[in-house]
Amino acid sequence: MDEHPLPATRPGRLMAIGGAEDKTRERIVLRRFVELAGGRDGKLLILATASELAETGERYSDLFRELEVGKVAVLRVADREAALAAGPEVLDLLAGATALFLTGGSQLRFSSALGGTPLAAAIRRRHAEGMVVGGTSAGASLLSEHMIALGDSGSTPRRRLVHLAQGLGLAPDLMIDQHFRRRDRLGRLLTALSYNPTPLGVGIDEDTAVVIEPEGTMRVLGAGAVLVVDARDMRFTNSYAVRRGQPLAMLGLKLDVLTTGCGYDLRRRESLPPEKTDVLVLREAAAALAEP
Amino acid sequence: MDEHPLPATRPGRLMAIGGAEDKTRERIVLRRFVELAGGRDGKLLILATASELAETGERYSDLFRELEVGKVAVLRVADREAALAAGPEVLDLLAGATALFLTGGSQLRFSSALGGTPLAAAIRRRHAEGMVVGGTSAGASLLSEHMIALGDSGSTPRRRLVHLAQGLGLAPDLMIDQHFRRRDRLGRLLTALSYNPTPLGVGIDEDTAVVIEPEGTMRVLGAGAVLVVDARDMRFTNSYAVRRGQPLAMLGLKLDVLTTGCGYDLRRRESLPPEKTDVLVLREAAAALAEP
Repeated sequence: MDEHPLPATRPGRLMAIGGAEDKTRERIVLRRFVELAGGRDGKLLILATASELAETGERYSDLFRELEVGKVAVLRVADREAALAAGPEVLDLLAGATALFLTGGSQLRFSSALGGTPLAAAIRRRHAEGMVVGGTSAGASLLSEHMIALGDSGSTPRRRLVHLAQGLGLAPDLMIDQHFRRRDRLGRLLTALSYNPTPLGVGIDEDTAVVIEPEGTMRVLGAGAVLVVDARDMRFTNSYAVRRGQPLAMLGLKLDVLTTGCGYDLRRRESLPPEKTDVLVLREAAAALAEP
Repeated sequence: MDEHPLPATRPGRLMAIGGAEDKTRERIVLRRFVELAGGRDGKLLILATASELAETGERYSDLFRELEVGKVAVLRVADREAALAAGPEVLDLLAGATALFLTGGSQLRFSSALGGTPLAAAIRRRHAEGMVVGGTSAGASLLSEHMIALGDSGSTPRRRLVHLAQGLGLAPDLMIDQHFRRRDRLGRLLTALSYNPTPLGVGIDEDTAVVIEPEGTMRVLGAGAVLVVDARDMRFTNSYAVRRGQPLAMLGLKLDVLTTGCGYDLRRRESLPPEKTDVLVLREAAAALAEP
């Protein structure tokens, strides 16, 4: 159940998961996605185009069923041929869905299959109308407009360390990276921002997620951390000038390390500490008093 | 030769090297240290207490001799017993030296041997009088007052990821870490700063160095990058509260990625882009005109 239903003209919430989310124990991240999807009233579609494994869609379908989402179905779009062939019955499914989940795999497998198709346009339209969209691993990256497609590891930004491609663009102001700590990906995120620091860099650890409200705040949940890099006020870079593989200078960045409960105001570009328990208690008390 | 001799009442320059500096090709970093030490007029002492290898001191001695430093000698201090036994002849050697070089190894081997000894006090006094001090790897960390002694890798700060110990304290405002990119050490540096964000965090890549002027600017040279983390304005952390191994939140940090030629104003806590070539040319022209 969605505690704060949005008018249909507002975009749906987004959830970006850093991959390798807990699937067997408390399942805090997936459970929260089920809540966002509408809980027992939710109608959830799973799109596993990013995955090379045929069973990925079914696996998530089983997981979400265990977590008692209302209805769940796998949208079968294996490749570009299938994406182009997606007819009115697929668009009808999307029209009825409260939420869409994008699995992991390769973000290029997904973007090269769906890019420019009516199916991608329909996903964007339905999200704009209020459909919740979540993605894990490659599926998280795909929420970006300027998407990190490939890259190498390392904490230092280097020329040609990263390759960009066009993503789904549901979170156009963010550049999302995942498996962040485990795969040591700060360097590739910084490199991408050095090319153009317009988007906010968001590096998400495994079993960790951000929920993005359409009003422009983001909150973290899960076991790991989220590194947020704001390079918009960068005063100097030489990324255009250095040679292949050489490290880049980037002066004047802002960095926040968020963990569960922390947030970020995406409009003001400012991190938010976890809400204090006494504030929450007060709010609950106020809500209790306000009940009829 | 030292182009800018300092009055004897000023501390000597410091050079912190991120380890694994080039020893066979251009040797940009070691060559610059020889310049700082006074070049052909330099009298350089090597202290290899951090290293468990008996030949480390000799190895650097050979390297610096190849680079044509005036005089070079190894100060043999194998352990705490030797450090305590260091008599007037050792202090005399130090009194005559223009520069001291600290090798790599284990910073705890060094600090547990020299900590609190008259020898450590003599090094600090000579540095305060103008002796240049350089260190690579463990030797770079040792320049800190609050020194990173041990830790684990990973880009996310986590409770207990790092152990601190007292260093030599020649650069008291800095917390220096090394082998930074190769060993993925951002997380341990952030963890240390979360405990107390007073010092500036300086993470130096391999074959890369910073030269710290006593007036309070720092310049980078070498093949890699230097990540500078300023956490002094940190607005929130939960490092005191989270459980062992859990990630920490740190909100409101500043990050700069410096590469060769970039600098940092340590007093104003502000990064400096490389000096523009036309400025350098102008300065050289002015100097030429100013010659008698």
